[in-house]
This record gives sequence, structure tokens and C-alpha cells, in this order.
Amino acid sequence: MEHDLQHTMALLTRTPPTLDALLRDLPEAWTLLNEGETTWSAFDVVGHLIHGERTDWMPRAKAILEFGETRTFEPFDRWGQVREAQGKSLGQLLDEFAGLRSENLDALRALNLRPSDLERRGRHPALGVVTLSQLLATWAAHDLTHLHQISRIMAHQYREAVGPWKQYLGVLQCAGHSSSS
Amino acid sequence: MEHDLQHTMALLTRTPPTLDALLRDLPEAWTLLNEGETTWSAFDVVGHLIHGERTDWMPRAKAILEFGETRTFEPFDRWGQVREAQGKSLGQLLDEFAGLRSENLDALRALNLRPSDLERRGRHPALGVVTLSQLLATWAAHDLTHLHQISRIMAHQYREAVGPWKQYLGVLQCAGHSSSS
Repeated sequence: MEHDLQHTMALLTRTPPTLDALLRDLPEAWTLLNEGETTWSAFDVVGHLIHGERTDWMPRAKAILEFGETRTFEPFDRWGQVREAQGKSLGQLLDEFAGLRSENLDALRALNLRPSDLERRGRHPALGVVTLSQLLATWAAHDLTHLHQISRIMAHQYREAVGPWKQYLGVLQCAGHSSSS
Repeated sequence: MEHDLQHTMALLTRTPPTLDALLRDLPEAWTLLNEGETTWSAFDVVGHLIHGERTDWMPRAKAILEFGETRTFEPFDRWGQVREAQGKSLGQLLDEFAGLRSENLDALRALNLRPSDLERRGRHPALGVVTLSQLLATWAAHDLTHLHQISRIMAHQYREAVGPWKQYLGVLQCAGHSSSS
């Protein structure tokens, strides 16, 4: 499937209510536990998504339109959620994510992007030349990678509780950790 | 984490609104495409969840309480969703899943299970002896395995569109297919 801006926006719109339906007021045993060591909890992932809304997707889209390949994107801080989340409840983070996403989608709509704009190019600090189309498709796929991660983190909490069914549950075989973006 | 019936029910309650928030009225390019060959689309997965509500979880829970290990569970039909979904829209399937899940949670509450009941045993056709506790924990983990799968199926549609970001997106490295239950 090729990138389609309307499809991307349809998905980006749905991620905040999806995470809200899944996580709000869920027992903390599901939302605050991680997969061990320095891995993330569902709470951490929502903080990471907030940090992306502030510093990654729309700032980079605007950088492509303003500077093209002449200026390299600011590197993304993969531990930025620690600051974002400090002292906040999960409910607050969910509200904040929904608010920022909504503002960013308004800003994206206001750009009135034409197909030719989507081919404009920028420079990623590690990946080199990327297009605006690739950036926006990645924004959507990044939501999905973290929904995928959250479902895996939560399933991990029942790894022993499911007993012999463990072998049938694909999510318990998955080792695909996210390392974006 | 040990199995906790309240935690299980909190999760089971949230799966239908989560899938509703994610999938309802989403473009069909996200919901009807699969990962190739005979793999499932998000639409198929919702049909599979419906089939599980009808024939798997609560029927097996009742079988454990009525017959213990003396009667083997009916095998689960992994292609039962084909019949469930025939001629229906995704919106209809989401409504049906939410209705059946709600009825099943009412039925589960009505059993008033005590901790000792959770240790009661039944017989799975392939896995042998299992406990009611393991069955109920698996019901919740099975929701998560399919949320994990849906996010992976959807991300797959943008595998090429994300360009060089592909290597950073964990969901695109995942090969953990579900084969339950």
C-alpha cells in the first residue's frame, strides 16, 4: 500500500481514543509494570508518544518544508518521556497526548499539503535523506509500533498465569522491541 | 504477576471499546488488507474474537465447573470467523463483539467464583490438564495477542511507505503470529 495522507490522518486521529479506551483507570499492575530491567511500561510509552508530539513529527515536517535537506533534524530524545511524565498520573498523560495530537492534526491540515509537497526532502541525523511522505507514514506506523508494544508489555504480566497456553499466544513469542524514531 | 480475576475482568471489559476506537469507520485499506496469503485482516480478527466469545471462553469455564477433567473441551475452530463474519460490515462485527463480551462478563460475575474455584481443573484437547485460573488469564492474554496482531497487520500496510524508518519500527520486525486458543 502506498502512503495516503487521508489514511494516515484517519489512523493518527484514532490512536488517542484507542489508548484511552485501553488504559484509563486500568489497574496499575497492567499499566506500571514493564518487561524487566530498563524496558518501558505502558505508562512510559504514553509519555514517549507525548514527547514525539512535541518534538518529533510536526517539527520535522515543518523543517522539511522550510529548510529541505540543508538542515539536519534535531535528534529525538528516546528518554524524553521521563521529563514528560514526571509527577503525572496516567490519566493526565492520556489527556495531554489527546490534546497535543489534536493540535498537531489541526496544524497538519492547515499546511494544505499537495502531492508534490509530500515528495519534498529533509535530512535525518542517522538515516540521511527522507521525504515528507515517509515521515508522515512513519508517524502512523510509530503509533502502531507502540500499540503493538503496549499489548506485548501487558501480556508479559500474564506470562506465567496462562500456564500451558503460553505456547499458543503469539504475543508471548514476540521480541520485536521498538527503537524509534 | 499472578492471575488476578479483577485484573482480568478489567482488561476484558476494555477490549471492545479499544477495538471500536481503533477500527470503526477507518478506511478499508487498514481494516481489510492482511499480511499476505492466508493471513488475517483486522476484520478477520474481530470475527475470530466473536467466535471465541460464543464457543471458547465461557463454555470452557462452565465445562470445568460442571465436568472437571472428565470431559475434554470441544476443540476451537480457528476458522470459525469465516461463518461469523459472512455478509457483515466491520461496524456490525464490532457491535456484536461488544454485546457478546458484555453478556459473557455478566455470566462470569454471576458465577461468584471463589479462589478455590480458580484451581479447579479441566482437560484441553491438546494441552491436557489446565486450571480455570489459567483459562481466564488466557482469555485476557488472548485479547492482547490479537491487539498485538492487529497493530502488526495494519503497520504492514505501510512497510514500504515508511522508507528508511523501517529499521527503527519494532512492529515491522515482529513475526510472532498467533495460533490460539
